[in-house]
Amino acid sequence: MAETVKVGILGRGTVGSAFRELLEERAEMVEEVSGRRPEVAGVLSSKDGDFEEILAASDIVVELIGGIDPALDYVTRALREGKHVVTANKQLIAQHGDQLVAAAREGGAQLRFEAAVAGAIPVIRVVQESLGAIPIEKVFGIVNGTTNYILTEMARSGLSYGEALKQAQDLGYAEADPTEDVGGADAAAKMAILARLAFGAPVQLEDVPFEGIEGIRPDDLAYAKELGLSLKLLGVAERIGDGEISVRVFPCFLYPGHPLSPIEGPFNAVMVESPAITEITMSGPGAGGPETASAVLGDVVSVIAGGSPLFEENAKLAIARDVEMAFYLHLEVDDRPGVLAQVAEVLGDNKISVRSVVQRGLGGEAQLIMVMHPVSEQSFGAALERIAKLDFLRSPPRSIRVIEEEFG
Amino acid sequence: MAETVKVGILGRGTVGSAFRELLEERAEMVEEVSGRRPEVAGVLSSKDGDFEEILAASDIVVELIGGIDPALDYVTRALREGKHVVTANKQLIAQHGDQLVAAAREGGAQLRFEAAVAGAIPVIRVVQESLGAIPIEKVFGIVNGTTNYILTEMARSGLSYGEALKQAQDLGYAEADPTEDVGGADAAAKMAILARLAFGAPVQLEDVPFEGIEGIRPDDLAYAKELGLSLKLLGVAERIGDGEISVRVFPCFLYPGHPLSPIEGPFNAVMVESPAITEITMSGPGAGGPETASAVLGDVVSVIAGGSPLFEENAKLAIARDVEMAFYLHLEVDDRPGVLAQVAEVLGDNKISVRSVVQRGLGGEAQLIMVMHPVSEQSFGAALERIAKLDFLRSPPRSIRVIEEEFG
Repeated sequence: MAETVKVGILGRGTVGSAFRELLEERAEMVEEVSGRRPEVAGVLSSKDGDFEEILAASDIVVELIGGIDPALDYVTRALREGKHVVTANKQLIAQHGDQLVAAAREGGAQLRFEAAVAGAIPVIRVVQESLGAIPIEKVFGIVNGTTNYILTEMARSGLSYGEALKQAQDLGYAEADPTEDVGGADAAAKMAILARLAFGAPVQLEDVPFEGIEGIRPDDLAYAKELGLSLKLLGVAERIGDGEISVRVFPCFLYPGHPLSPIEGPFNAVMVESPAITEITMSGPGAGGPETASAVLGDVVSVIAGGSPLFEENAKLAIARDVEMAFYLHLEVDDRPGVLAQVAEVLGDNKISVRSVVQRGLGGEAQLIMVMHPVSEQSFGAALERIAKLDFLRSPPRSIRVIEEEFG
Repeated sequence: MAETVKVGILGRGTVGSAFRELLEERAEMVEEVSGRRPEVAGVLSSKDGDFEEILAASDIVVELIGGIDPALDYVTRALREGKHVVTANKQLIAQHGDQLVAAAREGGAQLRFEAAVAGAIPVIRVVQESLGAIPIEKVFGIVNGTTNYILTEMARSGLSYGEALKQAQDLGYAEADPTEDVGGADAAAKMAILARLAFGAPVQLEDVPFEGIEGIRPDDLAYAKELGLSLKLLGVAERIGDGEISVRVFPCFLYPGHPLSPIEGPFNAVMVESPAITEITMSGPGAGGPETASAVLGDVVSVIAGGSPLFEENAKLAIARDVEMAFYLHLEVDDRPGVLAQVAEVLGDNKISVRSVVQRGLGGEAQLIMVMHPVSEQSFGAALERIAKLDFLRSPPRSIRVIEEEFG
């Protein structure tokens, strides 16, 4: 009779149920590879079960309730009592990672959260373990499947943002209230987690400025198509100069041939750059029920196999206040003399160098589409503020970042 | 004063020297993340150092000698004495994995070999740990950077095989004797290792039929270009029907949009398919000195962090004797009546269905290019043997496998 490992499951929603099923289905296999057989110690839902009893009966607690309260209390207590915890809760880790890592140390327990970022793609494991000994320069990618699905459909079928969102909701790729996904907050929480692991820096959620995709218009995608660019919501965490890091989420044009360009639909992809390894790219489906349950089970198996996930602590890194990016600027203007000159003057005053301009007349109106060379985001923001006040503008200026350098 | 971990290094070649340098450079960082500081216990080269002394002084032995003798003896003894071993030696693992895993069990030691497959891409870790609890259906990809570089250059610049090989040698992507890489044996050893880990089946090197790229002609790449196909040397390990697996290495055309199509130059990429997760793709640079040294150091850090890599044992799986594939067939023939009819007859006799035919006349000669629907490889082989004997053939028939289904 093999030794058993008692697994307490907190949560009986989609992921909770999928995980319980998977655990029972795969118990024999887990025993074969690890020598120990997992057994469900108890399941807690909002209606049934008693946390104290489940905690006492468990070796590993799997938290799939979501949200902060009561998950934070349950997980903290489990870790302090030396129970290992596996969670898929990105907000919990992004907002209270410090406290939870401290509780894990106090109790001598493992805390694992592969499922919190990028579904079944083992990016946490890779950043934390495989590359633990290697200085990571940059971790970036597409970490929200909902927005990637919407942008893919807008590009493919010329749908408006609203139409593509509706379609994503109908297919279950977007929630009824999509705010957290489409506004970028979901991606920001994931990037905060990745940045902490990659740099060991105490990155807080409020250190991660984010923009979403609600403002993207079919025009922008038409422009992208014309130039062979693709448009993605990117999360970027990178070292900037001396002792600074920057963590941000923003929509961005990518040049053709960029490794993230072919990532379409609800897929996620993450790239890790380090001088020693150039870069590696990992891609796969984003977080659906089965993918999340699989990632959680992977963590449970890792807990059973022993060993402790690694955390580096490096308080010396500061959050950069400004970074350089190239920008695309889309202006709808009156078609009259002097328009281009005035825009160019504002850009020049802010030391912004223009890489390309296209002006298209449409009767009395015109579209002015410009791409800048890389520039300080603060300078560009200052220029944009002045441009917005020019009297010939027919609608607010729209800007999107661009990654344009050739790859490799 | 932190606890130290003594690391004995066997081998002072390119990788051995790169690893030693990296270990010293990163010792402080490893201590920060793991709480223990690695120190070099000794270095063995063919001229200097004594294995017995280094073994006695080491907690972890890093084997970077390469080859079987004396690496097999050293690694076996280290494991039996309870010393953890990290190696980059794919032939050692592919040919003697059984014995080494048994020695590791006997000594209660860890055996890690991330660097043996796909350079800095953590494919071993992902297959072994992250997906340990998930039934893998298929692991496949581009696991040899030399051949991918040569095929990329042939496609890009229209070089002959010989010219592209020469260029790869000049750039250090191919060795002076390139046989193991270009003939497919290197990829076969890596696929044997991946198949063992993915399926837990005792796959031996002789179970892995392989073909190389020496026979690829600029004509084949011109055909690929015309149809938007790419040509890659693929390693494939997959479950086939009931209780069978197939592990093979062969050049193959990929349809446009296949996730492996954009992988160019000396890069590697591996896809893992499982019903639970659809598939994940990992790509990055192949094995150069720095990438290999990084992967080895990653394993050393994992050893320090504790835990044991997982091995599943499943002797119930058999090696499939036949599989189905689509084929491209290129014939150079006399341009006279009845040629197509005779070829079609042979194909029909072997129940092979033709998907497309192009015949191009060139004076008295003609090229006949056919693509088949998927067919048993044995049937196709039988047909090919008969076609080779037809009297109107001007050169031996050439065939290349094709993956043509739409993706996703």
